[in-house]
Amino acid sequence: MTELRREPVTRMWVAVTTDQPKGPSDYLSLKQDYQPREAAEPCPFCPGNEGMTPAETFSVKQKDGTDWLVRVVPNKSPFFHVEGDFDRRPEGMYDLMEAIGAHEIVIETPEHHQNLSTLALDQIGNILLACRERLLDLKKDLRFQQFLILKNYPGVFNRHPHCHLMALPVVPKIIDEEISGTIDYFQRKERCIYCDILREELSVKKRIVVETGHFLAFAPFASRYPFETWIIPKAHSPDFYSIDQESIIDLSMVIQSLFRRYYRLLANPAYGLTFHTSPVQGRHRPEYHWHIETRLRIGLREGFEWGTGFFVNPTPPERAAAYLREVG
Amino acid sequence: MTELRREPVTRMWVAVTTDQPKGPSDYLSLKQDYQPREAAEPCPFCPGNEGMTPAETFSVKQKDGTDWLVRVVPNKSPFFHVEGDFDRRPEGMYDLMEAIGAHEIVIETPEHHQNLSTLALDQIGNILLACRERLLDLKKDLRFQQFLILKNYPGVFNRHPHCHLMALPVVPKIIDEEISGTIDYFQRKERCIYCDILREELSVKKRIVVETGHFLAFAPFASRYPFETWIIPKAHSPDFYSIDQESIIDLSMVIQSLFRRYYRLLANPAYGLTFHTSPVQGRHRPEYHWHIETRLRIGLREGFEWGTGFFVNPTPPERAAAYLREVG
Repeated sequence: MTELRREPVTRMWVAVTTDQPKGPSDYLSLKQDYQPREAAEPCPFCPGNEGMTPAETFSVKQKDGTDWLVRVVPNKSPFFHVEGDFDRRPEGMYDLMEAIGAHEIVIETPEHHQNLSTLALDQIGNILLACRERLLDLKKDLRFQQFLILKNYPGVFNRHPHCHLMALPVVPKIIDEEISGTIDYFQRKERCIYCDILREELSVKKRIVVETGHFLAFAPFASRYPFETWIIPKAHSPDFYSIDQESIIDLSMVIQSLFRRYYRLLANPAYGLTFHTSPVQGRHRPEYHWHIETRLRIGLREGFEWGTGFFVNPTPPERAAAYLREVG
Repeated sequence: MTELRREPVTRMWVAVTTDQPKGPSDYLSLKQDYQPREAAEPCPFCPGNEGMTPAETFSVKQKDGTDWLVRVVPNKSPFFHVEGDFDRRPEGMYDLMEAIGAHEIVIETPEHHQNLSTLALDQIGNILLACRERLLDLKKDLRFQQFLILKNYPGVFNRHPHCHLMALPVVPKIIDEEISGTIDYFQRKERCIYCDILREELSVKKRIVVETGHFLAFAPFASRYPFETWIIPKAHSPDFYSIDQESIIDLSMVIQSLFRRYYRLLANPAYGLTFHTSPVQGRHRPEYHWHIETRLRIGLREGFEWGTGFFVNPTPPERAAAYLREVG
């Protein structure tokens, strides 16, 4: 049978297959070898080629102040431009505006062939620190409503480990829906829905993947994708950029542990990782609870969205979490 | 530069790249050869192997009443089961129910190696007729709220041309959002938003791909995906199942023309096709306007959804429509 489970924040129904659920071996058998599409020219993200990128906006240097460990640069082909005017205008019955914003690349390590499952703890901490510092700086620009930090592995045009950091002048749809769900729940209960989810998951335990002092990684009840995992701070906070140094170390441990588990369980799977953090400026919502969502890209019809926001997930999150716990 | 364009029904912002827009050659260079994953065993959808599928729920036969032309059968591995009880219940703070519904396969032709761009007009009409008849029959079951008709090309587990037909006990998220947007617009204007979009597109012309007496195929203003196309009936109607025979012939022409254009322009691209039709029973909305949405799967970062409902489309719909018109 299949169960329909409701995602409590956005109230979306997800179909979760409970009989003949699929496990790691089913996905491994479907796996298509991904041919790296490495450019022949030198990698602009490698040390020595810094001149190939725009000037850095931030970097973490080695203790002796020489070589960089993490480097943030404006994207050479950005989706957003910092200069210019929004020029909000109609076109016939439609609305449009110029895409004013920021689009930067966080170069996660000087080493071309690393990835999240092989990076040292300190280095993951350096990446998180760089992201935080860039958001704190970009927050000074009052035109931006939303920050996105996103990573896709493997990268499409360059395998050198990197993620995207964007400041948008609008709030993307899914964040907007999460905000609505959060406010709706708060109005009914005067509690944060994510804090309640945390309590529920800590109590029933069966969907937990990794737990530390400050964070919980778990497979959500209405997982849309097989092995979908949310990493959420235990203390309520709307904004990733408010994270302190102790929590950065703690979060690095959770990320390293989770991605090592993915690597071992599913043979270095392709994945996407997105930070969900409150909008800023006038759209800021203290009721929101920032978190990270990960989704694997491991099968063609697995975790399928049927074109209408209707997801079918053949691996129940209770099983996914058990697999990920056991592989540790 | 990039423009932010607002999709008028769901009010989602989409980033559309207007400088250095990508054309067909950019996608063709990215194309990865897709290895057919054909099973070694006989195809259950081929003539002679009818015993390998459950008993058919509907078929279109040749005029002499012998061989079938289109055959509809229950899916052997359905996401939904017709028998049983919803058993709506809480699990901790969450909600769940059994997935009661129907999940059928429409076998589109007896010929294993056909596809939408090679099928004859009559045969496309037969497929549409079979879909209509199945919906009219399933509508008698008062438990179903929503019908989905979906096609993915190429099929994941079988290349024999087929599509999925489902009856769901819930309304999927995107349909729900479209309904909300439609009602909201109707309350403000006392007009259907899709009828207004039709008028706009017929007036400005630049996003039209194919036009017939009863249907318009156009690239929507805020296309999320390169070459995204909507096929919409010119006369207001909430329900695909109300389509008459004359409109079926007309729609077959539009589908054949559109998919032949895709085939020629982008070398037989992978695609998804979804019918968006009003929910039924208590959720039925006469304000809704049924239509078909197509999306191509032709690039890795093209038409990318950045994990938060934020889409970036590097091919403006005006250009996509021009390419598709010219290739005819």
